[in-house]
Amino acid sequence: MEFDALFTAQLDTLKADGNYRIFAELERDCGAFPAARCHDDDAPDRVTVWCSNDYLGMGQHPDVIARMTEVVQQCGTGAGGTRNISGTNHHHVQLEAELADLHGKDSALLFTSGYVSNWAALGTLGARLPDCVILSDALNHASMIEGIRHSRAQKVIWKHNDPEDLDRKLAALPANAPKIVAFESVYSMDGDICPMAEIVEVAEKHGAMTYLDEVHAVGLYGPRGGGISEELGLADRITLIEGTLGKAYGCMGGYITGSHALCDFIRSFSSGFIFTTALPPAVAAAAQVSIAHLKNSDAERQQQRAQVARLRHLLDRQGIPHLDNPSHIIPVMIKDPVKCRMLADILMKDWGIYVQPINYPTVPKGTERLRFTPGPLHSDADIDHLVDALTVLWKQCALAHAVA
Amino acid sequence: MEFDALFTAQLDTLKADGNYRIFAELERDCGAFPAARCHDDDAPDRVTVWCSNDYLGMGQHPDVIARMTEVVQQCGTGAGGTRNISGTNHHHVQLEAELADLHGKDSALLFTSGYVSNWAALGTLGARLPDCVILSDALNHASMIEGIRHSRAQKVIWKHNDPEDLDRKLAALPANAPKIVAFESVYSMDGDICPMAEIVEVAEKHGAMTYLDEVHAVGLYGPRGGGISEELGLADRITLIEGTLGKAYGCMGGYITGSHALCDFIRSFSSGFIFTTALPPAVAAAAQVSIAHLKNSDAERQQQRAQVARLRHLLDRQGIPHLDNPSHIIPVMIKDPVKCRMLADILMKDWGIYVQPINYPTVPKGTERLRFTPGPLHSDADIDHLVDALTVLWKQCALAHAVA
Repeated sequence: MEFDALFTAQLDTLKADGNYRIFAELERDCGAFPAARCHDDDAPDRVTVWCSNDYLGMGQHPDVIARMTEVVQQCGTGAGGTRNISGTNHHHVQLEAELADLHGKDSALLFTSGYVSNWAALGTLGARLPDCVILSDALNHASMIEGIRHSRAQKVIWKHNDPEDLDRKLAALPANAPKIVAFESVYSMDGDICPMAEIVEVAEKHGAMTYLDEVHAVGLYGPRGGGISEELGLADRITLIEGTLGKAYGCMGGYITGSHALCDFIRSFSSGFIFTTALPPAVAAAAQVSIAHLKNSDAERQQQRAQVARLRHLLDRQGIPHLDNPSHIIPVMIKDPVKCRMLADILMKDWGIYVQPINYPTVPKGTERLRFTPGPLHSDADIDHLVDALTVLWKQCALAHAVA
Repeated sequence: MEFDALFTAQLDTLKADGNYRIFAELERDCGAFPAARCHDDDAPDRVTVWCSNDYLGMGQHPDVIARMTEVVQQCGTGAGGTRNISGTNHHHVQLEAELADLHGKDSALLFTSGYVSNWAALGTLGARLPDCVILSDALNHASMIEGIRHSRAQKVIWKHNDPEDLDRKLAALPANAPKIVAFESVYSMDGDICPMAEIVEVAEKHGAMTYLDEVHAVGLYGPRGGGISEELGLADRITLIEGTLGKAYGCMGGYITGSHALCDFIRSFSSGFIFTTALPPAVAAAAQVSIAHLKNSDAERQQQRAQVARLRHLLDRQGIPHLDNPSHIIPVMIKDPVKCRMLADILMKDWGIYVQPINYPTVPKGTERLRFTPGPLHSDADIDHLVDALTVLWKQCALAHAVA
């Protein structure tokens, strides 16, 4: 059988739809972020990264780098095994204690990524709690969707950020079935934030467990970076808080926190936790320093908010429409995959501005966008340059429309 | 609903069956491996690790550590995004080229772990090739099983390492359905090696694609560490070779290699590849150095084989039974989870020998074992000490049997 032909046919469809992905090949340069070298032929050698999830630049924080370097020297490069078979390092255990403290929980459990933490935790809970029903927000991340799908538990989708719909759907389920309400605090593509107090109240009313993904919020919200659940004082009412070390903390890995029994349950039964090599001890140690830093320092968060507000203000002044939301994520809607890619290409080539076009399947078709994530290390001049570029392109587009 | 009670009930069953896992808390000490610090209360401060998957000690190789350190300093700690959204670094691209070369393939694709690479690649192939049937060796790893399950493709299990059974099962399927034969080269728990030439021949006869997991073989077998498929000169007849950077290469991450269309297909459609933060550039760069080193150096492999042979010989001389196999893995069968844990505890506490008891679900119930992985850095004295310990314990067990 000619397998390559089968693959190529599906890739051709993707290309025809404008959804074929071309990765920008970057080389980050410590101390210079958000500037980075670019290895793409058509792009300038230096670009400014405007779409990183290293939201606070902690990936180049001197203390975080120093700690990773130190532990690589002490412990070597890899963990050398699964957590059970020789792969548990002192640094994993310390990081788990740090994470439990961050969210005020008894326990934490590390995974190799946020994706795996969602997939494995929801997959295990849904599969092992008899008659379990998972109530999933309509815009939950792929990792949660795949975890729920994998669990084969009954799944009920409730309207995005709509506690009333959740209430109705919970009320329609058998009273004695275990129920899990799965949702996110900050939705990464629209940048909207869930009505957490209302969701928690509804879940409690029906005796449901709450499963909260805070990956786009940890480090960024709450006085110690504990996320929206910390900011709103709701963490102790959430059963399970999931997060990542790969975004605001600038490293890699995912985790869950919750009761000791809950974490021990996932630890003991989850295939995606058990059968995989543990994170490098140096990555765990670096993440711990990053978390500890952002527990005590608010400067990065303050400066990020200032730059987010500045970009929003300047976009408004130029009449460039962006999704209104209370978070650090600024989506500029293009609503066409081909145009979205074209604009991103021009920004990169002519302006040295790197923003990845966000197309299907990351967002629904027809909602393609440029998604900007200003951080504390974007200078005022960086922001001015971005707004200048977008202003010029917007005028050209308007002109194109007028002529057409 | 009292969720903790539900969790605790299932954990209690696990404990009653002797299958509750207790992780040893180690701290590897660069240059001293396989010796490591141990943070467990009941254990000596220093132990010798006998169950690591850092098979060749590359996790503490000076060149690998130097490279990881250098790139942490240059590029920072994390990738800062998914591969598509700002997370592709020059070091990922270089590593993928190195991996493609290792297996003589057009392309390679990195994942955050070997688990994810199997899960994502099989999950995507099985789901997206219409009417696809996956023929899975009966002892395939959990990550492959979960990937196949996730794909919802038809699954046919063939007898472990039995090409005749595979042939019969392939013959019974519709001629025009796409078929994938999924298997491993070295099976990590028994240490047996598949009859690859026969399997490939059968697959070719039926026009099936071959999916080969070489995670316990890469770095260790073949003149350049390309695995059993390189050793046997069969790599060019395998459609997809999957491997890991977390075992013999001493780092973290997984990968697939194959045709350009195949890798591009998985890259473009796999949720587990698309929606996750990329590996830290420094981990990718370190892995590349490790692979390049083992392409050119055979010394580690030679010394490993010598120590594997030495341990086998001394076990035989003492009459301590171990599974016969042609690989670097020496399973000493205990066949009882409680005894297996007890022996491991005594080895740790009284002898400073760390070997994790391998119980269900990693191996079937009744096949519990101690699994030793001698490496080039285990000294003759380490081996003698291990054999002394096992000899004493065996005599005590025999005595216990005689008295009972």
